[in-house]
Amino acid sequence: MPKYYQISLEIIGQIREGTIGPGSRIPSENEIISSYDVSNTTARKVLQEIEKAGLVEKIRGKGTFVKEFVVERAAAKVLGFTRNMTEQGLNPSTRVIDSEFLQEDVPVKVSGRTYRIQGPVLKLRRLRLANRVPMMHETRYISTIFCPGIADQDLEGSLYHIYREMFHQTITEIKQDLSAIILDEESKRFFELDSEIPGMLVVGVTFCGKDLVLEGEESIYRGDRYKFGINATP
Amino acid sequence: MPKYYQISLEIIGQIREGTIGPGSRIPSENEIISSYDVSNTTARKVLQEIEKAGLVEKIRGKGTFVKEFVVERAAAKVLGFTRNMTEQGLNPSTRVIDSEFLQEDVPVKVSGRTYRIQGPVLKLRRLRLANRVPMMHETRYISTIFCPGIADQDLEGSLYHIYREMFHQTITEIKQDLSAIILDEESKRFFELDSEIPGMLVVGVTFCGKDLVLEGEESIYRGDRYKFGINATP
Repeated sequence: MPKYYQISLEIIGQIREGTIGPGSRIPSENEIISSYDVSNTTARKVLQEIEKAGLVEKIRGKGTFVKEFVVERAAAKVLGFTRNMTEQGLNPSTRVIDSEFLQEDVPVKVSGRTYRIQGPVLKLRRLRLANRVPMMHETRYISTIFCPGIADQDLEGSLYHIYREMFHQTITEIKQDLSAIILDEESKRFFELDSEIPGMLVVGVTFCGKDLVLEGEESIYRGDRYKFGINATP
Repeated sequence: MPKYYQISLEIIGQIREGTIGPGSRIPSENEIISSYDVSNTTARKVLQEIEKAGLVEKIRGKGTFVKEFVVERAAAKVLGFTRNMTEQGLNPSTRVIDSEFLQEDVPVKVSGRTYRIQGPVLKLRRLRLANRVPMMHETRYISTIFCPGIADQDLEGSLYHIYREMFHQTITEIKQDLSAIILDEESKRFFELDSEIPGMLVVGVTFCGKDLVLEGEESIYRGDRYKFGINATP
């Protein structure tokens, strides 16, 4: 493997993992020369290779920067965060914030109707990241009636996967209300933000079988990193 | 028609038209007695009748207030503003802000793809209201290729209706990107707002026939009055 190619893969890896985050400058030609002890021809080829990958943009006189990314979620198709990010070439990860058991049923209001998540309910809060950038945080209310012992599972992975594989639950439908919000202090802390940004609040219920409510959800998406794609009929 | 019923219809009419707007206090028992010169029994019956209509809520010690309303739009079904409001018991109206002709094609980017609205294009800005409350403002880019002479039509009505009835265009599909924004000064002026509220930006294209772009759209919805309803599959 030629030297320039090897170095470009290393830097592309740092971008994909988020070590060099969106908006950050990547090493300049001179920095590559001195860090990797290579010629300026090699350094130039490294930068060309990284540009070809489409992850960066050159700003004249300022350097080469990692592109900001905005993720699109299809409104009518809930792929789950993990698959949604992967399909867009991003590297998803999840951090559990906290969890607790609620004995009582939990009411969730969607589209003007109140659904009850049957207790005991596992209330699970998680932060979802792409290339180490916090993208959304979610509170899931999971009925343990359908998933006994779910708290013992790996809660940093896809819950849809766990429902399917471990508890043989088939998800039939997802109803969600989407509204715009200005992020509160807690969300800003989770997203490591100082400035006011808009957000999207998604409140939803997930059904397994006919009218059986498997879980409720309250998620906050970063408005500067998310778009919802709608394919509608008149 | 009994007197109490007649008066209640009058006040309900004022609420439906927006003369008494959301959050406003409706006349108290004493005010009804003196304005309409009726007994307190009649005045009480008037208030009971208005409450039955479900448009107001009593706040103990403060009076009876017109309910705030939040409108739901189905993500996957674009009914058009007029029908969307009517179906939720609201009274829609439209004000043209301004319009102009653009000779060139207009590019609109939706879901990562750029569509061209073929020129000459009628750029039309309108404010849409429900019960006299400004709900959203929109910029439509209409290709006059498909709708020659559209500027001579009544542009305060439903454009979808005009496309269909006057130009025999069948709308086949609508693609939209939905994102959250913080309203800018112009939007706040249109919405008669002082405070910071979140909004939703909808950028979309409407197709007639296969891949023919009839119009582009850029609309700003009030985030405090709108929710998008999603019915998704896993």
